[in-house]
Amino acid sequence: MAVEPVRFEHGRLTVLDQTALPFEERYVELAGAEDAAAAIRRLAVRGAPLIGIVAAFALALEAGRDFEGAAALLRTARPTAVNLAWAVDRVLAAGPAGALAEAEAILAEQVAANRAIGEPGADVLAGARSLATHCNAGALACGGEGGTALAVVQALAARGPVEVLACETRPLLQGARLTVYELAAAGIPHALCADGAAAGLIARGEVDAVVVGADRVAANGDVANKVGTYPLALAAREAGIPFVVAAPTSTLDPATATGAEIVVEERDAEEVLRVGGRLVAPEGTPVRNPAFDITPAELVTALVTERGVASAIR
Amino acid sequence: MAVEPVRFEHGRLTVLDQTALPFEERYVELAGAEDAAAAIRRLAVRGAPLIGIVAAFALALEAGRDFEGAAALLRTARPTAVNLAWAVDRVLAAGPAGALAEAEAILAEQVAANRAIGEPGADVLAGARSLATHCNAGALACGGEGGTALAVVQALAARGPVEVLACETRPLLQGARLTVYELAAAGIPHALCADGAAAGLIARGEVDAVVVGADRVAANGDVANKVGTYPLALAAREAGIPFVVAAPTSTLDPATATGAEIVVEERDAEEVLRVGGRLVAPEGTPVRNPAFDITPAELVTALVTERGVASAIR
Repeated sequence: MAVEPVRFEHGRLTVLDQTALPFEERYVELAGAEDAAAAIRRLAVRGAPLIGIVAAFALALEAGRDFEGAAALLRTARPTAVNLAWAVDRVLAAGPAGALAEAEAILAEQVAANRAIGEPGADVLAGARSLATHCNAGALACGGEGGTALAVVQALAARGPVEVLACETRPLLQGARLTVYELAAAGIPHALCADGAAAGLIARGEVDAVVVGADRVAANGDVANKVGTYPLALAAREAGIPFVVAAPTSTLDPATATGAEIVVEERDAEEVLRVGGRLVAPEGTPVRNPAFDITPAELVTALVTERGVASAIR
Repeated sequence: MAVEPVRFEHGRLTVLDQTALPFEERYVELAGAEDAAAAIRRLAVRGAPLIGIVAAFALALEAGRDFEGAAALLRTARPTAVNLAWAVDRVLAAGPAGALAEAEAILAEQVAANRAIGEPGADVLAGARSLATHCNAGALACGGEGGTALAVVQALAARGPVEVLACETRPLLQGARLTVYELAAAGIPHALCADGAAAGLIARGEVDAVVVGADRVAANGDVANKVGTYPLALAAREAGIPFVVAAPTSTLDPATATGAEIVVEERDAEEVLRVGGRLVAPEGTPVRNPAFDITPAELVTALVTERGVASAIR
């Protein structure tokens, strides 16, 4: 992938504004924690691993300023992805003097992890040719290489022909805008579908496996991921196909016992009411807009990390 | 409801263009079968009962012209809703001389059926306060009164407070555009959500029951309905809440043994690629766009018709 979702050069932190993709590749500079928190909140920077990386560099930029205040601001930018607090805590522990080196280490580790997830994932899914995925769990969600679910897809594609069914992922259309863009760039055959369509296509036998990323994995294996993931897991179990979660170990949260303890962010009504600025329902309509859902561990066939397969329940 | 999805007055057939709702109430005249088939294909006229009614009047308009050719054209406008072929066959059997009277009879019967569905549905769901629905199964989908799933909601609302979670129903947003419009007009509290969000909200215990309409019910009870219905049925079973299908008996198709035999229409890629004319994915992206999915009978708690509850599996 030629995409660079984050750059840190000559002391300047620059990110690709993912809200403008795929129609425009717009880079914006983040001057510090406040800019980074805003970029994370509005999903210009998104994907659990990338959020951690960007927060780490943003905090390093605050080394000579209000370091602890900046850490507190960043940690609360979004509640669900555990990588955010994990990265902030690491940089905070390194102290102002060690902050930049720690951020560089986090980036290097995450890129290595996202590179390493592909092969064990492809081993688990050996033989699968038609894969469904949700949201975007590719290089754009990570440090610019590999990815999580899409690293598995790429590793499988290197072994033989695969095709991907990409759910559009309303309300913010990360599947339509980002996953399709990455799959096209990688030359992997794909088709886009409405989120509600995937379960029926799975039931018809058109999908061999579902593979997604994660925002937080609880100690018992329950998975928080983009809203719309859980119904895919139900459909996969019903069809008897694997449902695989790919995530770096930085997404595992042993401090959270089960999915019931995971705070699910409820986002702004406007995300549902408008598409590309255009109203799709009567103005002022009340909205429920949870950003994530929880997939119980018993629906997860395998959890794949850079250290291999963490569980294989069935 | 003040809405009139179809009017037949002084020999002229006029329909509300449902693609323009809720922002504009635009009526268009249908001069005959060709206009009606086009309106049905582009979903200006949609909802299984309404499709049947409009096709019946359109065929009656052809009584002095190519009656049989018109019937063939109308019957193939869309493949999944059985009401279309059912209504066309009835008017065809009545012959050119009896066509208009038969169309009037179909309208009267369907309006009566859609009025009668509410009470038995409310009996099945007695005590439910938070209902999820998908697509639009209200007066707009029928003859202008009652509805199917929304008739059940209205009957429940007359007994006590209810609130409705309306799935937006991508790609064509019938939930966001039509169901929200009808619920607001009826004064029933509601919230809109992305299609992928409903299963997670059901899992969290926020929904007491799911109630939807149908486009075709096979002899074994399998239900074809708007794509995105099946994952709601899976989520309902997992949560132990009722999943109720409300449909007039004209939607039951004893000639189709099981859901596997139901032809699922695959619609144009542009419906997924654009929202309100605006591109949401790279131009030319391949798309899967099935308009319906099949919910197996074992996931359906009750099938409610104007003649009462046809089955109560659990």
